[in-house]
Amino acid sequence: MTTVGILGGGQLARMMALSGAPLGLRFLLLDNVTDACAGQFAPMLVGDYRDEAILAEFAAKVDVATFDFENVPAESARWLNARIPVFPNPDALAVSQDRLAEKTLFRELDIDVPDFRDITGFDALRAAIAELGTPCILKTRRLGYDGKGQFRIRSDADIDAAWQALGAQAATVGLILEAFVPFEREISVVAVRGRDGEFRHWALTENWHEQGVLSASLSPATGTAAFEADAVAYARKVAEKLDYVGVFALELFLHQGRLMANEMAPRVHNSGHWTIEGAETSQFQNHLRAVLGLPLGSTRSLGASCMLNWIGAMPDAQPVLQEAGGHWHDYGKRARAGRKVGHATLRADSPQALAESLARVGAALSRQTQVAPVIVRLA
Amino acid sequence: MTTVGILGGGQLARMMALSGAPLGLRFLLLDNVTDACAGQFAPMLVGDYRDEAILAEFAAKVDVATFDFENVPAESARWLNARIPVFPNPDALAVSQDRLAEKTLFRELDIDVPDFRDITGFDALRAAIAELGTPCILKTRRLGYDGKGQFRIRSDADIDAAWQALGAQAATVGLILEAFVPFEREISVVAVRGRDGEFRHWALTENWHEQGVLSASLSPATGTAAFEADAVAYARKVAEKLDYVGVFALELFLHQGRLMANEMAPRVHNSGHWTIEGAETSQFQNHLRAVLGLPLGSTRSLGASCMLNWIGAMPDAQPVLQEAGGHWHDYGKRARAGRKVGHATLRADSPQALAESLARVGAALSRQTQVAPVIVRLA
Repeated sequence: MTTVGILGGGQLARMMALSGAPLGLRFLLLDNVTDACAGQFAPMLVGDYRDEAILAEFAAKVDVATFDFENVPAESARWLNARIPVFPNPDALAVSQDRLAEKTLFRELDIDVPDFRDITGFDALRAAIAELGTPCILKTRRLGYDGKGQFRIRSDADIDAAWQALGAQAATVGLILEAFVPFEREISVVAVRGRDGEFRHWALTENWHEQGVLSASLSPATGTAAFEADAVAYARKVAEKLDYVGVFALELFLHQGRLMANEMAPRVHNSGHWTIEGAETSQFQNHLRAVLGLPLGSTRSLGASCMLNWIGAMPDAQPVLQEAGGHWHDYGKRARAGRKVGHATLRADSPQALAESLARVGAALSRQTQVAPVIVRLA
Repeated sequence: MTTVGILGGGQLARMMALSGAPLGLRFLLLDNVTDACAGQFAPMLVGDYRDEAILAEFAAKVDVATFDFENVPAESARWLNARIPVFPNPDALAVSQDRLAEKTLFRELDIDVPDFRDITGFDALRAAIAELGTPCILKTRRLGYDGKGQFRIRSDADIDAAWQALGAQAATVGLILEAFVPFEREISVVAVRGRDGEFRHWALTENWHEQGVLSASLSPATGTAAFEADAVAYARKVAEKLDYVGVFALELFLHQGRLMANEMAPRVHNSGHWTIEGAETSQFQNHLRAVLGLPLGSTRSLGASCMLNWIGAMPDAQPVLQEAGGHWHDYGKRARAGRKVGHATLRADSPQALAESLARVGAALSRQTQVAPVIVRLA
């Protein structure tokens, strides 16, 4: 009997446990809140991720550990890794937790990135803006997600406000200034690397955001012939350099034919949720297969899929459940503004059938805005 | 928040909970053993199914109840049904628990069945054998499953032994004598009926048994054109007559072109496990959708699938995990002779690819006998 420990008990841990159960696995979660939604389907320890007593209890009860979020303290990951196998390895986690280290790595690997500068103080910020121009974005190096910890600088007039918002964090989590790229498309490569180095990737996924949060994902992405090989090569290079084990997502911008890496998420990723129904093997099961050293499953797509995120509160399920390829995912979380509470995946055999299904669901839920850009791509 | 109560915490309850979690459901199991395998992924009460105190606790904590096995005491189902909705309804459960009532119902509905007689005593048995001829099978009317509670009577010389084995049960669970049908094929219709009467069925499934226990299932079954419509019509008639809500399986024999009903299983069924990966919506999720009055999901097949049962102990997972369409299901149960401990589903886009996959897995696991009849059908 193998028990997989998961640091974090959110929806990613939940879907991982549901997907890993058929492999005969047991799970133990560690989260700092008692009502983490994965706890509805797996036993959970509750405590601070830095508390060595609880980490020790966790380590004693599991055979291998992984994460459902990237902001696990790197020192906690290292503490665990000294006692039990931890995948992805804590060094890979540390790099992808730090926007500066991550972008520096991309550059080392000849992966194009939006220009960036390390910002250590207000003068450095002014100098960097002079070099990169406006608009640009000031971000915390660490602990940001879903658009949090970011300030968009439209013109020099915004510099003071940006510093007021984030300047104090220069001395704690660090800051980075990034050139703003008015990208036409955002594409992610969701991929998996096994303990033995085997690398597999799912079909490219195109993503759309609303207010900095993922709103819709389409896979296979359309019109990717010109850059697919590069995108996959980038993901592979990063994974190999980091000796990465497990599933990860590499987010890429496409701008005037240029493919640029935005960031890497060292975990199963929202833009890979469609794989549950839309691929032969889901990202969740393949993450576990990788972590456990089992053969990786086929990543091939089953038709075309679109994932729609539900933010804040769950909409009416009926319109999705009535679709032949409609699949519902309610994470069992309380409604709260801005919170990811669930998603739906619509799957179809053809792009046209998928577009029709999206149009029906969009109309029934009054979410035409959410589905519209996806329908445009499928036309 | 909706909590579904499941009487029984075996692998069917386990797969139901895993499949229903994405609907945002919670589950509560009731089982009479502490280590029932569904308890690894859902909270569980442990006690006797007839204990009114525990039934009351169960009823107080759930919104609706269903079953993972058909031998739930009918009186317990009725006790619950007086307090909370129970699906399938206890009357339907009672009929399908009783081979005599079930076969009588089939006849009423003009569904052909192997000839049978109610056996109330030894003299009745002798008289019935004289009428039906040998070979024939003496079975308990209730509480039999997987070939248990059956005695095959090859000739008149076996009558005493048969009575010695089962005669005492004439006065308790009742006995039935059934004509032996040397059927060429066993086919099951796995179907679902909603609260609103909507009826859907998955593709027909052909089944093979070893020592009375399901060994392999293939769906879509091949060469079914001559009898598919009848098979589905039978399933529909039975469900409508019983006002059945949920998933059920109707097992049919095919003998010299004659389609005969063997029995109905009033629950998700082993011959429908392939639907997890091989159909747009699994039998487990559709059972829950039906029970909750939600729209039923599409039952269409995704390619061709073969389910292989693992009895007694789990074999090596690697050969299955290495297959592109290989899916592993370890129920998390202890190994024990004769016990269903897991299954694998192989899925492919074509019958030929499925046959090749089966041949590889059969060879790697030295289970050529298990896969051989399926490969023959796919040729």
